[in-house]
Amino acid sequence: MSEPFFHSRWVEPPAGTEELSTATLAPGFAAGAVACGLKESGNTDAAVMVARSERCDSALLLTRNAAAAAPIRVCRERCDASAIRAAAVKSGNANAATGEQGMLDALAIQEAAADRLGLDPANVAVAATGRIGEALPMDKVLDGTRRAAVAVRPDGGEEFARAIMTTDAFPKRCTVRCDGVTLSAQAKGAGMIQPGFATMLCFVQTDAVVEDAAGSLRTAVNGSFERITVDGQMSTNDTVLMQASGESGKPLPPGLLDAVLLQLALAIVADGEGATRVCRAKVLEAADAEEAERAARAIANSPLVKTALFGHDPNGWGRVAQAVGMALAGEELAELGPDEIDAEELAADLPEAELSVRLGRGEAEAHVYFSDLSYRYVEINAEYTT
Amino acid sequence: MSEPFFHSRWVEPPAGTEELSTATLAPGFAAGAVACGLKESGNTDAAVMVARSERCDSALLLTRNAAAAAPIRVCRERCDASAIRAAAVKSGNANAATGEQGMLDALAIQEAAADRLGLDPANVAVAATGRIGEALPMDKVLDGTRRAAVAVRPDGGEEFARAIMTTDAFPKRCTVRCDGVTLSAQAKGAGMIQPGFATMLCFVQTDAVVEDAAGSLRTAVNGSFERITVDGQMSTNDTVLMQASGESGKPLPPGLLDAVLLQLALAIVADGEGATRVCRAKVLEAADAEEAERAARAIANSPLVKTALFGHDPNGWGRVAQAVGMALAGEELAELGPDEIDAEELAADLPEAELSVRLGRGEAEAHVYFSDLSYRYVEINAEYTT
Repeated sequence: MSEPFFHSRWVEPPAGTEELSTATLAPGFAAGAVACGLKESGNTDAAVMVARSERCDSALLLTRNAAAAAPIRVCRERCDASAIRAAAVKSGNANAATGEQGMLDALAIQEAAADRLGLDPANVAVAATGRIGEALPMDKVLDGTRRAAVAVRPDGGEEFARAIMTTDAFPKRCTVRCDGVTLSAQAKGAGMIQPGFATMLCFVQTDAVVEDAAGSLRTAVNGSFERITVDGQMSTNDTVLMQASGESGKPLPPGLLDAVLLQLALAIVADGEGATRVCRAKVLEAADAEEAERAARAIANSPLVKTALFGHDPNGWGRVAQAVGMALAGEELAELGPDEIDAEELAADLPEAELSVRLGRGEAEAHVYFSDLSYRYVEINAEYTT
Repeated sequence: MSEPFFHSRWVEPPAGTEELSTATLAPGFAAGAVACGLKESGNTDAAVMVARSERCDSALLLTRNAAAAAPIRVCRERCDASAIRAAAVKSGNANAATGEQGMLDALAIQEAAADRLGLDPANVAVAATGRIGEALPMDKVLDGTRRAAVAVRPDGGEEFARAIMTTDAFPKRCTVRCDGVTLSAQAKGAGMIQPGFATMLCFVQTDAVVEDAAGSLRTAVNGSFERITVDGQMSTNDTVLMQASGESGKPLPPGLLDAVLLQLALAIVADGEGATRVCRAKVLEAADAEEAERAARAIANSPLVKTALFGHDPNGWGRVAQAVGMALAGEELAELGPDEIDAEELAADLPEAELSVRLGRGEAEAHVYFSDLSYRYVEINAEYTT
C-alpha cells in the first residue's frame, strides 16, 4: 500500500474526495511515454498528453525567467493558451540557452506531435526539463515524439508522471474524484524551485466544466506553486498546463484544484534536492502584503534558517530575527525575540514544521513553504553538470 | 614566513606600499584584549582599541538590518560618529535580539570602557559578534572590558585581530606604510556576509590626516565590503570604524584605504563558512547600474552557481544564464550562451576565478565577489547553534 496522496497537515481536500489509481487519467484524456535516449539511464523521456474531445478549455502558465527556454517561447508565441489539446514533453534536456537552433527544434517537436495527433500546431504545447545549454539529438527526439503520440492510452497517467521526472526522487501525481468530477495531475520538480511563479512542470486534466480556466489556475497556483521555495532559483522552463474537457457536465468542486496543486507543490518541496524536512514560515502583523511576502521569502531562502531546519536547531529563532531584519532593512522594527517568533518546531521531530513571526506593524500576512539545506543538496549540485 | 597581506589578483595597492608587522598599530593607537569567558574555547573575547591623541577624526558605518543588535543601536543613538576615540568589542555573543536588557548591557559596557579610559561615553563605540539571542554574563563582561582597557599597547594589533574572531579560520589584519603614512586594520567575518553594506566588523587606524573620513570610508566600503557575499545574509551587527589621528601630517595616499579594505573583504570571502574558492562575477552591458547590480548579485547568491564553483563545473554557464534570467524576469533579454557568458574559470584550478556575462542591453556594469557552497557550509551551520 502506498501513502495516500493527500497527507500534508497543510492541505484540506473537499469532503468526500476519493483517490483513484494514478494510472487513470480524467475521462477524455490519454497519455503515452517512450524512451528516446535523452536520459542516460534509459528511462522514458518523451511523453505526450492529449485530450480526445474536440472541445478542451485550457490555461497555460509559463516562467517569467528572461532567459526562458525555447519550448517556453514557442508556447508564448505559437500556441493558443486557451485551447491546448495536447502537450509534448521532453525530460533530460531543457532545450534552454540553445539559441535559434533550439527554437527550430522546439517548433519541429510541436509540428511532429501535431501531425501525428491530427491537430493544429497552435493547439499543441511543448515543454522540457533537464540540462541547460545542450543541443537536442533531433532524430531521436522526433522519433520519440511520434512514438509517444501513438502510444497514448487512458491509463497512461503513471507512466506520463514518471517520464517527466529528472532529479526527482519520486513521481508526483494523483487522480481524484469528487462530486462527479475527476481530476488527474502530474508534476515534476526538485531543484531550481522558487516561484515567480511556477518553477516546475505540472499538467492537470479534468472532465469538469471550467468556465474560467485561466482564472481558476492562476488562483490555485497563487496558493501553491507560488508559495514554495527550495533554492530561491526561478527556472528557465516552468510550465503549468490545465486542460478541462467538460465531459462530466459538472463544475469543479470548490477547493479541489487548490488542494491538488498545494499537495503537489509540497511534494516538490519535500523532494527538494537533498531535502529532509519541509517548513512553513508564516509572517503575521506585517504593514502590508508586500512586506509580509518579502519577510516570509527572506526566512524561507535564508541558508542559515534552512541549515537550522536541517540541524533541528533549538535556538533557530535568532536566525529568523536576522532574516526578517534583513528583509526590512532601514525600517523601524520592534525587537523580535522568542515572544514574537515561534520557532520551536524547528527542533521538533516533525517532517512538516511550522514557524511564525509577528512583526507588530499591521495586519497583513504571508506564508512560504521551504525545504532544509543539507549535505546532499551540495553533493547533487556540485557533482551534477548542468 | 607568512603570505603577504596583498595577494589577490583583484587588488592593486599604491606603488611603494610596504607591509609591517601586524602587531604594530598606526602611530598614536593602542589595543588590548583579554579573555572574559564568552568563548567556550577560553580564547580572548574582550578587546579595546583606543586613539591616544585627543584629536581623532572618525567615521562609523553600521548595519541597516532592522533587527540591529544592541551595540549598533547604542552607536547610532549615543555616539558622536565623527569623533570616536575608542571601541570596546565583544566576541562570542552578539548581544542581538536581547531586548531592553541588551541595550542596558551595551550602555554599561560603553560606560565602563569610557570610565577606565577617561573618555566621554559618546566618544566610545561598542561592537559585538557571536551568538544571537543570548544574555551577556555582565559581571564577567564588565570586568573583561576594564581589563582590556588597561591592557592596551601600541603593538596590540595582532591580539586585537584575534580577539574579534568567531567562526573565522584565520585573522584578517594588516599594517601598511606608504608615502609617510601608516594604516593598520583588523576585520572579522565568515558567515552572514552580504553587504547592505558591511556585514562584519572592521577597524581601521591611521596617522594620516583625513579631511572627509565619512566620505573616504564610504567610498572604500562601496568598493569592498559592499561587493562581497558569502550567503546573502545581512548581519545584525555589522560595524566598520575608521579612526584617523592626523599625527603624520600627511594625507592618505590615494587608493591605499581602498586596497586594504578590498583585500580584507576578499579575505572574509575566502574564509566564508566552508569556502574553498572565491569568484568575481562581472556583469557587462547592462541597461543601467541597478540592473547590473541585481544580475551580479543573482549570480553570486545562486546556490546553483556556488555549487558549480565548488564542483569545478565545466558547463557552469547555463546556471549563470538561469540566474541572470531570474534577475531580469519579465524583461526582453537576448539569448545568453557561451558567446555572452565566459565561465571557463569555474572549472579551472584557480583559487580566484573570474566569470563574466554581457547582457547586450547598454553600458552599465557591476561586479560581486562570492565564495562557493560546500559540504562544510552546511556542517558549520547545521551543527552550530545560533
